[in-house]
Formats: sequence, C-alpha cells, structure tokens
Amino acid sequence: MLNPQTFEPPLDAAWLERTLESGIPLARHLGIRVASIDEGAIRLTAPLGPNRNHQGTAFGGSLFSLAVLTGWAWTTLLLKRGRYEADAVVQDSRIEYLAPARGPLESVLEPPASAEVERLRRMLERSGRGRIRLDVEVRVATLAVARFEGSFVALRR
Amino acid sequence: MLNPQTFEPPLDAAWLERTLESGIPLARHLGIRVASIDEGAIRLTAPLGPNRNHQGTAFGGSLFSLAVLTGWAWTTLLLKRGRYEADAVVQDSRIEYLAPARGPLESVLEPPASAEVERLRRMLERSGRGRIRLDVEVRVATLAVARFEGSFVALRR
Repeated sequence: MLNPQTFEPPLDAAWLERTLESGIPLARHLGIRVASIDEGAIRLTAPLGPNRNHQGTAFGGSLFSLAVLTGWAWTTLLLKRGRYEADAVVQDSRIEYLAPARGPLESVLEPPASAEVERLRRMLERSGRGRIRLDVEVRVATLAVARFEGSFVALRR
Repeated sequence: MLNPQTFEPPLDAAWLERTLESGIPLARHLGIRVASIDEGAIRLTAPLGPNRNHQGTAFGGSLFSLAVLTGWAWTTLLLKRGRYEADAVVQDSRIEYLAPARGPLESVLEPPASAEVERLRRMLERSGRGRIRLDVEVRVATLAVARFEGSFVALRR
C-alpha cells in the first residue's frame, strides 16, 4: 500500500494536465490538453472552437496563452524533476503571428541547449533565482502559425 | 422611426463590449468590460478571479489577452469611425511583466501621435493595408503590472 506521506505522483502528461487545469481557470476555457512530454520536449493542444475570433481563426491572445503555458509547463516540470522548491514565472515575451490559424492548435517546445539548462540550475542553486529563454512554435497541422519566445524565471520559495 | 437599412449603432463603449463578446468567446471568460473610450484613449477592465494563476495573481496569458484586445479595439474603432471596410489584426507584440497583479485589472491605451494615425490612414487608402504600433499598460489601481507593445495591421476587405 502506498504511504500517503511519501507517495509522489509520476510527473507525466496527466499530472501536468491536472496542474494546469487546477491552477489556471483559463487553461480549462482554452481546452488545453497535454499531448506529450517526451525527452524534454513538450506539446500541448487546444481546439479552435473556444479560441476563435471574429474571423473564425484563432484569437491572438489564445495563441499567446497556449505558448506561454507551454514554456511555463516545461520550466515547472524541470523544477519538479530536480526536486527544487521553486516556482516558475514568465518575465517577458515576444510573439509573432505568421499565418491565420484555421484548425486545431498544437504548441511545440523543443528543449533548449543543455548548457542553458545547466546554467539555470547553477543560478538557482547559487542565488535562489535562475532564468532561461524558451522558444515555442504554435502549429496547425504542419503550418507554423505563431512563433513565441519568452524568458522564464525560476524562484526558490 | 429608425430605418433599419440606414440605422447604425453609436460606436460607444456598449457597442464595443458587444463586439468583443460576440466575436471572441475568450473575452467573455476573461470578464472583459469596456470602461471608457474617450478622446481616442481606451480603457478595458477584467476581474482577477477568472484570470488568476496558481499563485493567486494574474495569469500572464490573461494580461496579454487584455492588452491585445485593447489594441485591437482601438484599431477597430478607428476603422469604423473612418467608415473603412477593413479589419484589424495583430501582427506581432512584446509584453513585459513588471509586478504580480493582485487585484482587478485595468488596461490603458493612450492614443498614438496623430502623425502615426495619419500615416495608417494614408497607407490604408493607398494600398489597402496600413500598420500602427500601439502601447498598452495594464494596471492594478495605480500600479503598472505589464507593459505591452504591438503592431496592428488594418486590411481592406
């Protein structure tokens, strides 16, 4: 039997989805699902319906929200896996809209260079505060519809 | 009696609120209200509740959505008032998070320089496509919590 004092849930897609849904009401309205979290890469999805604008394409704020949650999720997973008592927050970001999004959305974060991840860990251990820049692409099937880049800060509690 | 063929609603805060709510489902979930649209400036508001994150402060995607809708609303009103048959879309943007937002949100767009507005009109008349850069600040009472800048494109239909 599991001891409730020591049991920790696996840090998998289901855990991440529950974490997003329980903490951020907007994530539920966006219809965000965690598609995969393999080998450091993260993919989230969202349907077009609740995210559409007047023209029936995706609203810019929805594309941004999907992308920033992808970066936040990646950083949060890294901190959890490293057993850091730290929270992730976004500090600043840019987004460029490349094409109208006319179908279901997928965001893709490829893991940053391992030297960048090491630097984040070192900063966090040394000063309780680390920072990393992450790139996220939002796609409709194979079409890139938005390119996002953001700085995420990890802060020891 | 009003002739339904020629009646046009006044381009006031109520009209803008209906336009946002009817075209963008997410605007309803964010709880966005139009506070004022006087002399070219626009102010929108949103409560903290539906926009909170794990830490009980405003989610970065909500702050972005409020700001981008403020810029979009300003551009849309300008086009409507000028009787242009054109739509506004956001092209790219940056946002910087300045402080955690712990209360009701207000976004403020001060009108850009009149030379910039004239340039947008000229581009639109000449080529059917104009662009303008807009700055929006998001505040909680007097505290600036996010600074947004975005390029909005007006496209003739």
